[in-house]
Amino acid sequence: MRNATGWAAHRQGGPLEPWDFTRRDLLGDDVAVRVEYCGVCATDISAVNHGSEFPVVPGHEMVGEITATGDAVTRFRVGDKVAVGNIIDSCGVCPPCLAGRENWCLRYPTLTYGSTDPKDGLTTRGGYSSEYVLPERFTYHLPEGLDPAAAAPLMCAGITTYVPLKRWGAGPGRTVGIVGMGGLGHLALKIAHHMGAEVVQFTRTADKADEARALGADDVVLSTDEKEMAAQTGRFDLILDTVGAAHSLEPYMAALAMDGTLCVVGIPPGDLTVSPLSLIVGAKTLAGAGSGGTAETREMLDFCAEHGIVADVEVMRPDQVNEALDRLARNDVRYRFVLDMAAGGGGRSADKNTDENTYESTDKATG
Amino acid sequence: MRNATGWAAHRQGGPLEPWDFTRRDLLGDDVAVRVEYCGVCATDISAVNHGSEFPVVPGHEMVGEITATGDAVTRFRVGDKVAVGNIIDSCGVCPPCLAGRENWCLRYPTLTYGSTDPKDGLTTRGGYSSEYVLPERFTYHLPEGLDPAAAAPLMCAGITTYVPLKRWGAGPGRTVGIVGMGGLGHLALKIAHHMGAEVVQFTRTADKADEARALGADDVVLSTDEKEMAAQTGRFDLILDTVGAAHSLEPYMAALAMDGTLCVVGIPPGDLTVSPLSLIVGAKTLAGAGSGGTAETREMLDFCAEHGIVADVEVMRPDQVNEALDRLARNDVRYRFVLDMAAGGGGRSADKNTDENTYESTDKATG
Repeated sequence: MRNATGWAAHRQGGPLEPWDFTRRDLLGDDVAVRVEYCGVCATDISAVNHGSEFPVVPGHEMVGEITATGDAVTRFRVGDKVAVGNIIDSCGVCPPCLAGRENWCLRYPTLTYGSTDPKDGLTTRGGYSSEYVLPERFTYHLPEGLDPAAAAPLMCAGITTYVPLKRWGAGPGRTVGIVGMGGLGHLALKIAHHMGAEVVQFTRTADKADEARALGADDVVLSTDEKEMAAQTGRFDLILDTVGAAHSLEPYMAALAMDGTLCVVGIPPGDLTVSPLSLIVGAKTLAGAGSGGTAETREMLDFCAEHGIVADVEVMRPDQVNEALDRLARNDVRYRFVLDMAAGGGGRSADKNTDENTYESTDKATG
Repeated sequence: MRNATGWAAHRQGGPLEPWDFTRRDLLGDDVAVRVEYCGVCATDISAVNHGSEFPVVPGHEMVGEITATGDAVTRFRVGDKVAVGNIIDSCGVCPPCLAGRENWCLRYPTLTYGSTDPKDGLTTRGGYSSEYVLPERFTYHLPEGLDPAAAAPLMCAGITTYVPLKRWGAGPGRTVGIVGMGGLGHLALKIAHHMGAEVVQFTRTADKADEARALGADDVVLSTDEKEMAAQTGRFDLILDTVGAAHSLEPYMAALAMDGTLCVVGIPPGDLTVSPLSLIVGAKTLAGAGSGGTAETREMLDFCAEHGIVADVEVMRPDQVNEALDRLARNDVRYRFVLDMAAGGGGRSADKNTDENTYESTDKATG
């Protein structure tokens, strides 16, 4: 077994603390990845606060470097820069897997943390750790030119928004609304903009308007302003709703044009509710999407590299992880926290120490 | 003004009774249609039981004959056999209208009954009547070879199911489920079958299984049988839900394959609810559809003529209309009542008298 260190919650709602654990020895098609950066996703908060199995090591937006390869590995060599997302294995033989859409694996994919890995029987531990071991099939070359810290959130927030934007035709001549301007929303905005769509950012926070325009929004709508919302009626071909808090879908259904789609990628508590006529009148659809498979992830990384799209990130030391989770829970982040797993500050996994750098946004897509 | 006679409810929930009223004199692009047959749709029950303006003359599935044409009419001549559906006018200049999808006219289409017609200021009166006057644009040539009584329901039940079946790709290699086996459902089954899809009928009524197979179903699922329902998981590319009563959508969401669509065409009371994960896992969609525009209606009539698709109907005399509505409300019909507006029995509109014929199904599509 390989020794790893990480940051784990040992009980529901408990703080994350340094923790030593083991990962399996490399199987033939496995690679070992030294984790350099790991994004902090709202799912991580859910796992800590609402999960049932502890300890849990969160984190599923990783960028790092290959440090070892199994005998059968063909696509990676030691020293390669790579990215890993929220799926690290799947059955490989069902129709979704064969289509490169392993996120819908009929046997359910092995998630980056909190799954029981059928290959070794161990509970998977996430990317808030020194090292990750996984099959090369779910390991991705990090395209050159993307800042590694800012690229990490592409692996969950990026792919989750890229897939529905592409599926529902975001592009020239189409008007796309983005609801919510957090980790997912701000990446959706950039991606849709670079796909060529007219992009409108919905936000409850008036002072985000200028930032939204700087990120690529052609227009900004204050969703708390009923008059402004009423003026959106029939405008949108696609609205991507990234909000994880409970909210009414009706204003967004009304904002759709004929044949329009409201796609939910946040997971609000409770059921989604729409009136039958909101769907029927105008032949509208309510859709869902989440994560992506290997084919889509490779495509997304290429697209982001081509257009210089990365997240706007605030980089934190691992020992700031509890602060990051707290602030994320309050939406106090613009727009994604990323842990620098090599930075000092108490993590036993640190293999080098840094000063208390303040890290600034490294977004390259916006001027 | 032109004198017409019809069957009207004079108060909410009241019985339909013979009633004399007037229609406008023909405008340049109007035609007058002597109504020969009119289907009885669940919407008619709603209008009587839950409408707010009375009297109401229901009926929006008409087949008849042109008896007069306005000066500017170019596509019809006296004696032509025609069909009329649930829309009789629209603004004509908005994008949906220009696309031949007038059912989503941005100024709202003029419905066949219960609308205020902007051209004459009159409340529209439906097809349970001796004559209808409307623009030729919303009048359709009845294709030769279709039984006129059995073709009448194509104008609402047929078009409402044809449009989503086509939009969501019912055809060879696709598996389509039809929920509910009433007026809409049995036509959806026939249409999907003739589009080339593998078609599965969901029904709560075990003794409809043989009938469903006779109408074209490749398989029948008893939706009250939990075990049978569980076996459908992940099977369907499209499920068309024609049920107007309240029911859970979750079993049908679960029965969808990756990227599958559950399309609602019935209008159940209350809101539609689904869990976010039911949508997100498998990238599924919940869609709505209703009626169709002129382009789609012409296409649907051609398709039905080519494949010999008409409704299975039970033809009634106009003075049996209250019995028809009562029985329809109890789902006691296989599968659509059609009023023979020329048949005797107390309707002052009758221009001929018949014996108390029993009319049998005239379906031609099934052997």
